Amino acid sequence: MANSKYEYVKDFEQSDPLLPNTWIVVRIDGRGFHKLSDRYHFLKPNDRRALDLMNAAAVAVLKDLPDLCIAYGVSDEYSFVFHPSCQLFERRNAKLVTTIVSTFTAHYIHQWGTHFPDEPLQSPYLPSFDGRAVMYPAVQNMRDYMSWRQVDCHINNLYNTTFWAMVQQGGMSNTDAEQELQGTVSADKNEILFKRFGINYNNEDAMYKKGSVVYRQYQLEAAKPTPEQPSEGEKPAQTSRSQQDKLQKLRRKAQVVVDHVDIIKDDFWEKRPWILSGKPGKLPVESGA
Amino acid sequence: MANSKYEYVKDFEQSDPLLPNTWIVVRIDGRGFHKLSDRYHFLKPNDRRALDLMNAAAVAVLKDLPDLCIAYGVSDEYSFVFHPSCQLFERRNAKLVTTIVSTFTAHYIHQWGTHFPDEPLQSPYLPSFDGRAVMYPAVQNMRDYMSWRQVDCHINNLYNTTFWAMVQQGGMSNTDAEQELQGTVSADKNEILFKRFGINYNNEDAMYKKGSVVYRQYQLEAAKPTPEQPSEGEKPAQTSRSQQDKLQKLRRKAQVVVDHVDIIKDDFWEKRPWILSGKPGKLPVESGA
Amino acid sequence: MANSKYEYVKDFEQSDPLLPNTWIVVRIDGRGFHKLSDRYHFLKPNDRRALDLMNAAAVAVLKDLPDLCIAYGVSDEYSFVFHPSCQLFERRNAKLVTTIVSTFTAHYIHQWGTHFPDEPLQSPYLPSFDGRAVMYPAVQNMRDYMSWRQVDCHINNLYNTTFWAMVQQGGMSNTDAEQELQGTVSADKNEILFKRFGINYNNEDAMYKKGSVVYRQYQLEAAKPTPEQPSEGEKPAQTSRSQQDKLQKLRRKAQVVVDHVDIIKDDFWEKRPWILSGKPGKLPVESGA
Amino acid sequence: MANSKYEYVKDFEQSDPLLPNTWIVVRIDGRGFHKLSDRYHFLKPNDRRALDLMNAAAVAVLKDLPDLCIAYGVSDEYSFVFHPSCQLFERRNAKLVTTIVSTFTAHYIHQWGTHFPDEPLQSPYLPSFDGRAVMYPAVQNMRDYMSWRQVDCHINNLYNTTFWAMVQQGGMSNTDAEQELQGTVSADKNEILFKRFGINYNNEDAMYKKGSVVYRQYQLEAAKPTPEQPSEGEKPAQTSRSQQDKLQKLRRKAQVVVDHVDIIKDDFWEKRPWILSGKPGKLPVESGA
Repeated sequence: MANSKYEYVKDFEQSDPLLPNTWIVVRIDGRGFHKLSDRYHFLKPNDRRALDLMNAAAVAVLKDLPDLCIAYGVSDEYSFVFHPSCQLFERRNAKLVTTIVSTFTAHYIHQWGTHFPDEPLQSPYLPSFDGRAVMYPAVQNMRDYMSWRQVDCHINNLYNTTFWAMVQQGGMSNTDAEQELQGTVSADKNEILFKRFGINYNNEDAMYKKGSVVYRQYQLEAAKPTPEQPSEGEKPAQTSRSQQDKLQKLRRKAQVVVDHVDIIKDDFWEKRPWILSGKPGKLPVESGA
Repeated sequence: MANSKYEYVKDFEQSDPLLPNTWIVVRIDGRGFHKLSDRYHFLKPNDRRALDLMNAAAVAVLKDLPDLCIAYGVSDEYSFVFHPSCQLFERRNAKLVTTIVSTFTAHYIHQWGTHFPDEPLQSPYLPSFDGRAVMYPAVQNMRDYMSWRQVDCHINNLYNTTFWAMVQQGGMSNTDAEQELQGTVSADKNEILFKRFGINYNNEDAMYKKGSVVYRQYQLEAAKPTPEQPSEGEKPAQTSRSQQDKLQKLRRKAQVVVDHVDIIKDDFWEKRPWILSGKPGKLPVESGA
Repeated sequence: MANSKYEYVKDFEQSDPLLPNTWIVVRIDGRGFHKLSDRYHFLKPNDRRALDLMNAAAVAVLKDLPDLCIAYGVSDEYSFVFHPSCQLFERRNAKLVTTIVSTFTAHYIHQWGTHFPDEPLQSPYLPSFDGRAVMYPAVQNMRDYMSWRQVDCHINNLYNTTFWAMVQQGGMSNTDAEQELQGTVSADKNEILFKRFGINYNNEDAMYKKGSVVYRQYQLEAAKPTPEQPSEGEKPAQTSRSQQDKLQKLRRKAQVVVDHVDIIKDDFWEKRPWILSGKPGKLPVESGA
Repeated sequence: MANSKYEYVKDFEQSDPLLPNTWIVVRIDGRGFHKLSDRYHFLKPNDRRALDLMNAAAVAVLKDLPDLCIAYGVSDEYSFVFHPSCQLFERRNAKLVTTIVSTFTAHYIHQWGTHFPDEPLQSPYLPSFDGRAVMYPAVQNMRDYMSWRQVDCHINNLYNTTFWAMVQQGGMSNTDAEQELQGTVSADKNEILFKRFGINYNNEDAMYKKGSVVYRQYQLEAAKPTPEQPSEGEKPAQTSRSQQDKLQKLRRKAQVVVDHVDIIKDDFWEKRPWILSGKPGKLPVESGA
């Protein structure tokens, strides 16, 4: 029974490679997490268990895919960044995005019980994520994307922190709190927090204020100007397969860490030049050695 | 702290709607399931637990997304079919594919323990899936796609059944079995099975021979010619939102079933006209009523 | 001097095949024809010379590309239709569109002097056209596209005929005519034409009222129901190269004609089944034979 | 007669914007110019009239589209380059490509008679061109593209010059010349030219050896390092409409020139920084002032 009669249907598949030498950002978002966070009693404004679970899943994704150079997460979203020189899956869009979404989901579900021991998952109400890829041609564009997400994190967290203080500690209704906050600027919210509730926003948890940055850890370097679009990235076809494999192995040796720091200013990137260069740094000296 | 300075990065997002009035097939495949099936000791040639788990996850996906009209699974792959009139997520490619991949993965991981009570998942070696969407303009193209998968199922299963009989029952080495099977046709394999091992391939489990078909169950109808590309599908913009919502509700009432039958001949489709028409059929009369 | 150092730049080219088994409509539009029609003194509301020139260029395109099955033109736009079974240029989007745009432009410029003997082209103010391709999965979608253009032709021509009668014969200012026509329906315009200017719109030139249809002429057939999406179109991969070549030769023998008839109703398509079937009809018997 | 019934067909149009902040290269190629050059008796290995006509058409395209920053032509092909900051037609792929192809074709046909006074165009055998767009993320990628074309020009011209000398002056058959040249390197060909035909390849016309570079002329600047990807290019959304308009006006004032120089080394680009920066330079001082 030959299958040739039907094989023409393969002609309908369309190739979807992403443009070479561009930064690829795959952003995933929780599906219907508003409802989901109610069902599983997420704490407001931030649920540490939920964020730790997001971060754990993101770390697993970075370990699984050494081509990823950095990721940034806030709330129920996570952005994963491939270097311009990345050749994984021949840069096929759907393959890259679905691999990240599925790997992230698998670890999120698998580790749920560890982070939410008292909130077992109730089928069919399982967490899931959608995702998409965006290309950024210049390193500045990619960094501006990351800055955009971190500024968004700040704006939302300041709002949510104030809102829930007014509701939870101030006894206001959701509607009243919402109304009072309408049109306020950052200074207003800081003042509400401090004067009414004795909360100094600066002392809030860095994870809530800054979000979570995930990357491979090497020895920090002295800050120097951000490297330009790396030259090897410009000629992606010329990085040989064996070179790529060697780099992968080096990357697998590095530890994947979660940080809650500013990624808008240059400092973060200058001290960790391996993120933008795509070349592994020096492994940190073992503290016990 | 306004975010407008960085918001230009949103301009790099590219829209990806799939062409209206086409059948959308989202096919997902297990990542590295060869290795994975070794790690978790899947039985050869078919592991009923693994297939039941695949089917359970597929059923959950169909229940979650009433826009899906049918799915077909074999081995570690599953194909999900959206009707040409589907407007879900404005037919955005990445959104449709990642939602299916993530929902499938979530249920697969969540139900793993039920199907593999003796093989707990070992992080980081978790099952995951990639996926992609293909558009088929004509109903015949979509049916030919389904036929292609089912013929593939047959070819592979006959081969694997024979191969593993030769190895497991016949005591041959993998290499020897492979060599002997090279160049054989179906009749040869049937004969090997029957003469050497007393196996009548026809009596093998239908799930292994035919794969698994998942769809919503309504009252079967008398077989009549396959309906043409349905007319409402041709003018997708004209199905009103409220009509769509009404159809969705009707679909949610139907039971999602798993079948192991021929989907190449017309009979299957003619008796279940709701699959190709996209219009819900009559709910089956309750047997106990 | 080897060129291999730079050849990696070819990797940035992205393939752009259009989905198999869909109708491809390439629509071209005059660039800045409002200004251009002033410069070369096009008559209002319709300039026969300009329309004849458009039609002559369209006929040349159909003769050059036998894969085209029909074209429809109105004003400074023309829509060219490829059959779902078309394999020209492997259905590459840019190649199909630019070939039509360039061939059309070449003939338009070359024949300008024949149609506008008293209006020589003044460089750099040359006519040019842009274009794009749209895919239609079902024959009904493609026919609805054609109907859309012909209805548009009717609406615009009735408006323009009335407007210019009011201005040219009625001595009204453009603004006054525009204002009076605002909110009027077809019947109102017909009445203005007839009562004020003695013009019976039905007697206007069919080319102005119906636009221009260009196709290959074979023996008309008795009207019978429109054929469904033709079966050979559904399996485009299976039409052999030599069959395609044979069809091309037959098509080249047919005369390309320009008609000004209704293409909304079924009659036009039923009498000319070769347009939708993609199979050449019988050549008309020579009248002189 | 409302048109709303058919307007749904517009939903099948798919948007095709090119990625922001990338160099856009639109390359056009003559269709069937091998045959065409025979029909109109183009001289071998180079026909000055044909190249002058190509260049004249390219100059007209640059004058028409001030967003173009440079073009490079050789034989029957021309590559037009838009700056990363270009917003023309919202960077729509088909619109950009077809506008260039059509404008080029229009001028090519219109000026044919000037360049080929003794070879009138014979309908339907008219020259036409196809085209496509390719995006290059980094300035180095774009320059490598240009270098690739110029190296190709050199390789082909050296071959063709030698081949036609052997045939036209040496009296060899095409086949014999082809055979002898197989496997030769540049030095071999230079030697054949010099020893057998007294031709010093270095003295050949620069247009034939280097191809043609078309750009806007401003005051040359002292060579300094090539500017990096210009910063304004990185945030294309932030160049205001009025700024864009102002730049366009400045560009229209500059003369468009045709040059036959090396564009592989840095010198060309360093002396003409406006090409890569996208910012108009200083207009040259009028010689008569």
